[in-house]
Amino acid sequence: MTTPPLASATDALRPLLDTVLDALREGTQARGGPMPGGGPEAVAGRLRAAVGDVLPEEGDPEALRHVVRALTEGSADPADPLCAAHLHCPPLAVAAAADLAASVLNPSLDSWDQAPAASALEQLVTRKLADWIYDPHSCGQSCRWGGTGGRSGTPPARASETPPTPATPDCLVTTGGTESNQLALLLARETLGPAVRLICGANAHHSLPRSAWLLGLPDPVIVPAPAGTLDPAALDAALTELPGPHLVAATAGTTDAGLIDPLPEIAAVCETHGARLHIDAAYGGGLLFSDRHRPKLTGLSAAGTVTLDLHKLGWQPVAAGLLAVKTPQDLDALQHHADYLNADDDTEAGLPDLLGRSLRTSRRPDVLKIAVTLKTLGRTGLGALVDQVCDRASEFADLVDAHPRFELHDRPTISTVLFRPAHATDDDIATTRRHLLTTGRAVLGRARMDGRLWLKATLLNPHTRPDDLAALLKLVEGTTPR
Amino acid sequence: MTTPPLASATDALRPLLDTVLDALREGTQARGGPMPGGGPEAVAGRLRAAVGDVLPEEGDPEALRHVVRALTEGSADPADPLCAAHLHCPPLAVAAAADLAASVLNPSLDSWDQAPAASALEQLVTRKLADWIYDPHSCGQSCRWGGTGGRSGTPPARASETPPTPATPDCLVTTGGTESNQLALLLARETLGPAVRLICGANAHHSLPRSAWLLGLPDPVIVPAPAGTLDPAALDAALTELPGPHLVAATAGTTDAGLIDPLPEIAAVCETHGARLHIDAAYGGGLLFSDRHRPKLTGLSAAGTVTLDLHKLGWQPVAAGLLAVKTPQDLDALQHHADYLNADDDTEAGLPDLLGRSLRTSRRPDVLKIAVTLKTLGRTGLGALVDQVCDRASEFADLVDAHPRFELHDRPTISTVLFRPAHATDDDIATTRRHLLTTGRAVLGRARMDGRLWLKATLLNPHTRPDDLAALLKLVEGTTPR
Repeated sequence: MTTPPLASATDALRPLLDTVLDALREGTQARGGPMPGGGPEAVAGRLRAAVGDVLPEEGDPEALRHVVRALTEGSADPADPLCAAHLHCPPLAVAAAADLAASVLNPSLDSWDQAPAASALEQLVTRKLADWIYDPHSCGQSCRWGGTGGRSGTPPARASETPPTPATPDCLVTTGGTESNQLALLLARETLGPAVRLICGANAHHSLPRSAWLLGLPDPVIVPAPAGTLDPAALDAALTELPGPHLVAATAGTTDAGLIDPLPEIAAVCETHGARLHIDAAYGGGLLFSDRHRPKLTGLSAAGTVTLDLHKLGWQPVAAGLLAVKTPQDLDALQHHADYLNADDDTEAGLPDLLGRSLRTSRRPDVLKIAVTLKTLGRTGLGALVDQVCDRASEFADLVDAHPRFELHDRPTISTVLFRPAHATDDDIATTRRHLLTTGRAVLGRARMDGRLWLKATLLNPHTRPDDLAALLKLVEGTTPR
Repeated sequence: MTTPPLASATDALRPLLDTVLDALREGTQARGGPMPGGGPEAVAGRLRAAVGDVLPEEGDPEALRHVVRALTEGSADPADPLCAAHLHCPPLAVAAAADLAASVLNPSLDSWDQAPAASALEQLVTRKLADWIYDPHSCGQSCRWGGTGGRSGTPPARASETPPTPATPDCLVTTGGTESNQLALLLARETLGPAVRLICGANAHHSLPRSAWLLGLPDPVIVPAPAGTLDPAALDAALTELPGPHLVAATAGTTDAGLIDPLPEIAAVCETHGARLHIDAAYGGGLLFSDRHRPKLTGLSAAGTVTLDLHKLGWQPVAAGLLAVKTPQDLDALQHHADYLNADDDTEAGLPDLLGRSLRTSRRPDVLKIAVTLKTLGRTGLGALVDQVCDRASEFADLVDAHPRFELHDRPTISTVLFRPAHATDDDIATTRRHLLTTGRAVLGRARMDGRLWLKATLLNPHTRPDDLAALLKLVEGTTPR
């Protein structure tokens, strides 16, 4: 048997990439829309028929083409304007291309000798983003590591050293908002003790209560949020009533409606009660890139920890999560020792200790695609994409509002629009959504607000045009029972 | 501003992939060896100089080339035969190519409407692998979903249904052995209660005690393992002494020496005491593919949960972790509800509920590269790669053993060889390793066994030839103080 080529053999890799591109094109043509038709069993049946035995005794040299083609044909396509259900963005070409290099080079961020440059790149990006998240206005030319040689020519701190300035925020790379929220709770537990209680709104992401369960924390207190945002007065009452310590989790960009909690008021309540504040800005954090929308995040920098997801308003392939941490000493809780990765004498001799940067051990450099995207587009380029999707949402809300047969829930805060056919029942709406889905014609989400079920359009595609929005609305109109 | 192209625009993606391939080639040439020279500060300085400001106001269209080139130049190259420190494999070209499609299509495995075909592919692969892990001998033609239409023409179970046969094992896809071990402990906690105590050998992976800490479990009991494997008699004594419930974690392929605990004896001790057994086969699990080496894993199927990492003996880019679960009802503990992803009426209407397959929410389809690799190489092709790296390790041990200036720790069980220059001190050995590392000449690991420090060569590159092994030994010889 000839040993199959490694990814580092670029001459061998190139034709395989051509195969992938061909299979992507063929699969997309075969699908012919935003979603494969026929519903779950039909899609799974076609996939199984195309793949056949996935672990045969003898290999199949055509497997790459067949499997990628089948996967493509059976995919929901976030690049199709009619696929707008979830915080599920279409990735940028430049991000996907950079991500290929991560797969080929395969650095693993658990020790320096597996990731010499990748660990340096991660440090560069995470510190820049931490500064940016905590103070976007001041983060211009003078920003740390903003130039080519570090600040004022000072050599960079080794990863193994305590950062020089206690107040300098830091940032971890995660698999997404869920892991970021999990880490935020863990840091709170290690800082405030295992009796720390999570308090969040009913509008908060499900991963927050799930993380409390995972970490063995007391049952969280869920503050009702009938208007879709966390009410500072209700929060104040809960904090007054419950014994501490408390971790309050606010949201900047709810999953259901893209709403932003009143961050400055919540921060003030937390300060009054001495509660620690976490802000889940998995969705809304991307507004930082936009001059126009950034003011909506005023108050963000009051949080001890901030979740951000660049696979939402950042157009990265999954995974591209971040957790910004205001007080880097909080990260000491993650310090961990494994002789084969960070022996004391190696650390003393200057080899950076990376184990405290994650709970994972082997770790893919998701920072590469992030770095390439940030630098290719620049802050203004990313801001322009943010502005575009927010504009599309606003235009879609206009269309809905002007349409006699539809009801608009509210003007969008970010890029989510909730709407429903007038006079439809909740069952009608759920059925309409599933019908569009299983016939492969459109992918819309759903959300319950004000006691009623709404259709949800999450607009994350900067290439979507006004015509597409009109087509989407027309499609829903044609599908809804009269 | 022109909106930058999405990854789905294959005509726009193609030239970017060419840029990546060029940058990979240029960066590899500029490095000229297994590791960049100069040590951590020099490597980080060059990277920072090449990248410059990572979040400039205006974009830089050359960023992809420059950042990928700099990362490549500064990478440790697992495809270089002299890079053999860690369980850090060189990925196969076909796996990296398939992984590109995951980045482009960006399905997210938290709901069916984001991943219709990817969820079906994951089900196909995980069930096949679970069957394979728990009974590799019987898993031929008759294996479930082995053919194109499912077993005996029975339509496949929907993901939302309880699997039909209680005894049918299942498998989750994870970010690696660490997350797999974490999930194994979580399932034990949820099955046996929060007082469950982890008992493992001192040879077990650091992620096991770390997971106990994460999950708020009692302090684990670490059984001394002076010979490098868990002693069944010592385990029996610990289980006799300590009140239950217990989770015993055994290892098939230790990180330090690639040793396999005596699995059948450990399983018998666990059965006697009614203890739950987890086996961390992150490294050794790949031996299942090889007819020659599979018998070393006898006893594996006694475990309630098994960790496997196909980014080790499976030649995948990180991440490609698995957790096999013998009793699928154990997975009920992960069931989770979030109305926007798995509303009851959607589940009842037949939309598969995916949230209980992971603690993550957004989730990249790492199963794609795994599926393509399994099918391209077949079981025998993967087995041949396993045999090759085990043979190389055996040959390297021969070279060491025959060399008057080196001491061999032991014959390799898998593909790890511990060796040391005769008469060297531990300090000499640590210094030699760092010198090879920081001069960019070789990447070797380290391990403490029998109270002494050893150099560690983990041979995972199937393209390594006997000549390379001789060169590696000669290089170490020339570097060690006489």
